[in-house]
Amino acid sequence: MSEDDGAEQELGVTKSKEYETGEWYAEVVQKAGLANYGPEGMSGFIVTRPRAYALWERVQGFLDAKFKDTGVQNAYFPMFIPESYLEREKDIVEGFDPEVAWVTHGGHEELEERLAVRPTSESIITPYISQWVRSHRDLPLRVNQWCSVVRWEATETKPFFRTKEFLWQEGHTAHETGEDAWEETMLRLDQYESAYEELLGIPVLRGQKPDHDKFPGADTTTTVEALMPDGKSVQGATSHHLGTSFAEAFDITYSDEDEEENLAHTTSWGFSWRALGALIMTHSDDQGLVLPPTVAPEQVVVVPIWQSDTQEEVLSYAEGIAEELEEAGIRVELDDRDTRNPGFKFNEHELNGVPVRFEIGPHEVDDREVTVVHRPDGEQVTVDREGIADAAQVHLDEVFAKLYAAAEENLEGEVREADDRAGILGTIGQHGGYVKAPWCGDEACEDEIKEQIAAEIVMVPFEEDDDLRNEDHDETCAICGEGARRTAYFAKAY
Amino acid sequence: MSEDDGAEQELGVTKSKEYETGEWYAEVVQKAGLANYGPEGMSGFIVTRPRAYALWERVQGFLDAKFKDTGVQNAYFPMFIPESYLEREKDIVEGFDPEVAWVTHGGHEELEERLAVRPTSESIITPYISQWVRSHRDLPLRVNQWCSVVRWEATETKPFFRTKEFLWQEGHTAHETGEDAWEETMLRLDQYESAYEELLGIPVLRGQKPDHDKFPGADTTTTVEALMPDGKSVQGATSHHLGTSFAEAFDITYSDEDEEENLAHTTSWGFSWRALGALIMTHSDDQGLVLPPTVAPEQVVVVPIWQSDTQEEVLSYAEGIAEELEEAGIRVELDDRDTRNPGFKFNEHELNGVPVRFEIGPHEVDDREVTVVHRPDGEQVTVDREGIADAAQVHLDEVFAKLYAAAEENLEGEVREADDRAGILGTIGQHGGYVKAPWCGDEACEDEIKEQIAAEIVMVPFEEDDDLRNEDHDETCAICGEGARRTAYFAKAY
Repeated sequence: MSEDDGAEQELGVTKSKEYETGEWYAEVVQKAGLANYGPEGMSGFIVTRPRAYALWERVQGFLDAKFKDTGVQNAYFPMFIPESYLEREKDIVEGFDPEVAWVTHGGHEELEERLAVRPTSESIITPYISQWVRSHRDLPLRVNQWCSVVRWEATETKPFFRTKEFLWQEGHTAHETGEDAWEETMLRLDQYESAYEELLGIPVLRGQKPDHDKFPGADTTTTVEALMPDGKSVQGATSHHLGTSFAEAFDITYSDEDEEENLAHTTSWGFSWRALGALIMTHSDDQGLVLPPTVAPEQVVVVPIWQSDTQEEVLSYAEGIAEELEEAGIRVELDDRDTRNPGFKFNEHELNGVPVRFEIGPHEVDDREVTVVHRPDGEQVTVDREGIADAAQVHLDEVFAKLYAAAEENLEGEVREADDRAGILGTIGQHGGYVKAPWCGDEACEDEIKEQIAAEIVMVPFEEDDDLRNEDHDETCAICGEGARRTAYFAKAY
Repeated sequence: MSEDDGAEQELGVTKSKEYETGEWYAEVVQKAGLANYGPEGMSGFIVTRPRAYALWERVQGFLDAKFKDTGVQNAYFPMFIPESYLEREKDIVEGFDPEVAWVTHGGHEELEERLAVRPTSESIITPYISQWVRSHRDLPLRVNQWCSVVRWEATETKPFFRTKEFLWQEGHTAHETGEDAWEETMLRLDQYESAYEELLGIPVLRGQKPDHDKFPGADTTTTVEALMPDGKSVQGATSHHLGTSFAEAFDITYSDEDEEENLAHTTSWGFSWRALGALIMTHSDDQGLVLPPTVAPEQVVVVPIWQSDTQEEVLSYAEGIAEELEEAGIRVELDDRDTRNPGFKFNEHELNGVPVRFEIGPHEVDDREVTVVHRPDGEQVTVDREGIADAAQVHLDEVFAKLYAAAEENLEGEVREADDRAGILGTIGQHGGYVKAPWCGDEACEDEIKEQIAAEIVMVPFEEDDDLRNEDHDETCAICGEGARRTAYFAKAY
């Protein structure tokens, strides 16, 4: 067996996306060099390798620019939260019992008060906002931090989807009025939706969580939900309108123009690397990773194909093309390794999710052409050497459009309706996806579905989008038969 | 007392940089809105407010671009390190006893093995590098992470200089040969030197730490040292040539072209937010923060000065100028608040360290001019409205040059020589700064100085820069009188 054969075998993804989705996902993550599992004794932790971190950097760049354009400033708060601070949330949340990592010793000394590694930072950020806000002139106040947080949940590790430590951003804002805070909540949800749709090529549904599933202390938790190919929904990101509950617990007041003291209204909103999980899961296939060109570390790979007598001219032609693309701002890699054959290279770049491949052999040189291959479907076309950078951009856009269209078609086909319990159970049981059903608003009705098929209400459309919110109708709850008050989207969830 | 008077008083820095340096520093940090102290029970932690975090983002942008241009990829490793991993460093370092924060519980469960919050990540990154490196084709391998680390040292908190948690980057690389690793070590030191000199406007000395003060396990620890105005040296950043010690402890081997297995040679290098401490300390004055334009969040503030009858024309003229600067890529703020008088605004922007102020009143409008004021020295000149963006850039460059020249003059005047014990003690005791002295290389000689005046050897010039390295000389150690082998720079250190 030659070196290439051995390596080629190692490259192959052996599991099927359709039939063994979980195993396939784990294999793609590992073989495309995205992540490794943490050390022994640290289940739930992963090592984020450069190719995955580069994806996260693109997400950061996209969102950070939007945040800064809309009045947000970055800051950094301590990674530990004293237990007594965390416990102030008991005033807000009944039965508050955080599953966190506890620091009990510093050096050789036991700490007087143990410290939680932040699971989210409301309880340490809000007291500082309280110090910084004095007058209406200090509002709105918006801070954001990019950091990692730790939640000690005992579940099976699934890189990016379920890990004890994860990377995210958390934004925290304070406003004069509830309307201002609501506008902020929705602005951040819009930005999250853009990140999914425009950057990651994943269409989402937007709405709010049922009241019993809100962020603890929130007035409203809004969400973008993405449908995965296995028919389960991913909570893509959430933006919380916190009302005045945190302002009350942590004493954020401001003096208005008439010198009256008022409670501020706050929001918080977070976007985590779970988005990378959704990205990998949505577009990839049995050949490996598929990435939209918007986030791909390399957008185009140029693979020269030569024999010894054509090496010089092929390489020189390929180099010229790679340079031209680079000058046009396209992320391009010239794969001129002489230790690998073209077939190996094709497989490797497919595994790694490079969106567009340029194949260049003596024919292409003679005809002043380039053979262009799209990653998602292998579509192959010949384009002129002249104006190659523009052509590359056209093909990158086409690849993005294909990926988005496929995800959109999947989503559209996977929203079904049901008006009774059997319909919900049967439809989700058979097809997965979302089932829209009229709902009375009672958690008990969701519980029934949960117990039977582990599906839940992942989203309720916003009031203005929900006909059932208006009480002038005869619809009844699909589960209990009482009057329906909202449309609920049931689905199995990640 | 009017509202402005009260606020103006709050703005004033009351301590003297020259006579109460520590208190002055703490006051500038607080009043310029850079940081707050952490919560009760968390001494040693700070909250990094947006104005300081923006400085850190500029440092990140500068270094990250240099790293990426020179083959480094970012990644992210778990923030916890199992105790058994950390203890492998016992093989490298005698008496290894890390002062770290220990996580002992996850949720309600006690962990089987306690986890250290990373104080630095060699012991968790190196085992993964060991997995990723198989052949010489995998080398050099370079990863970097931007993160926070925690060191449980019981000292007085000094924001950015001494905190239990701090932000930094840590780079980790593996190479085929010791020479390659040494080149890498020096490349990173060069980049750190650039960050200090070109970005932060702080000249540094470069060299290596005495052997007894190296990073545990390192062959050589290289450093850039910056002199603070109180005559103490700050270790600005360090870059370590680790030789094969970590490769041995964590088993990083590669097969070379002849299929022979070899140990890799590794490096690590880190740059922390201590640089922000050096930045604030070096340039600022009794009016507050002074920032070089390279890192200032606002480079130019435009302050319009109007009476009711001139408001419209003055504001419109000022707006035009601010827009022109913004289009030219200059970070500009138009301070058109009508709730503050110009004197208050001047004080506030001085406190906040805005490098250049444009004052615009009816005279300037009539004469199509702008009054330009430099932050460090109050120098005031009148420039034409025509070509204002170019003029702004010229003044920004001038301000940078002034700050750098002042710091350089301070440094040059503060390197003195001594050839005996009394000379070292007396010179540092009287002047602070650096004292160059011939040294035998023995730690005991440094200890003598340390005990008497708490000064230490902060740096030894590189071999090629150090005449005493050559044994053909008669110089003797300033402390013990034995033959001198190196030139040592003694100083008090942060």
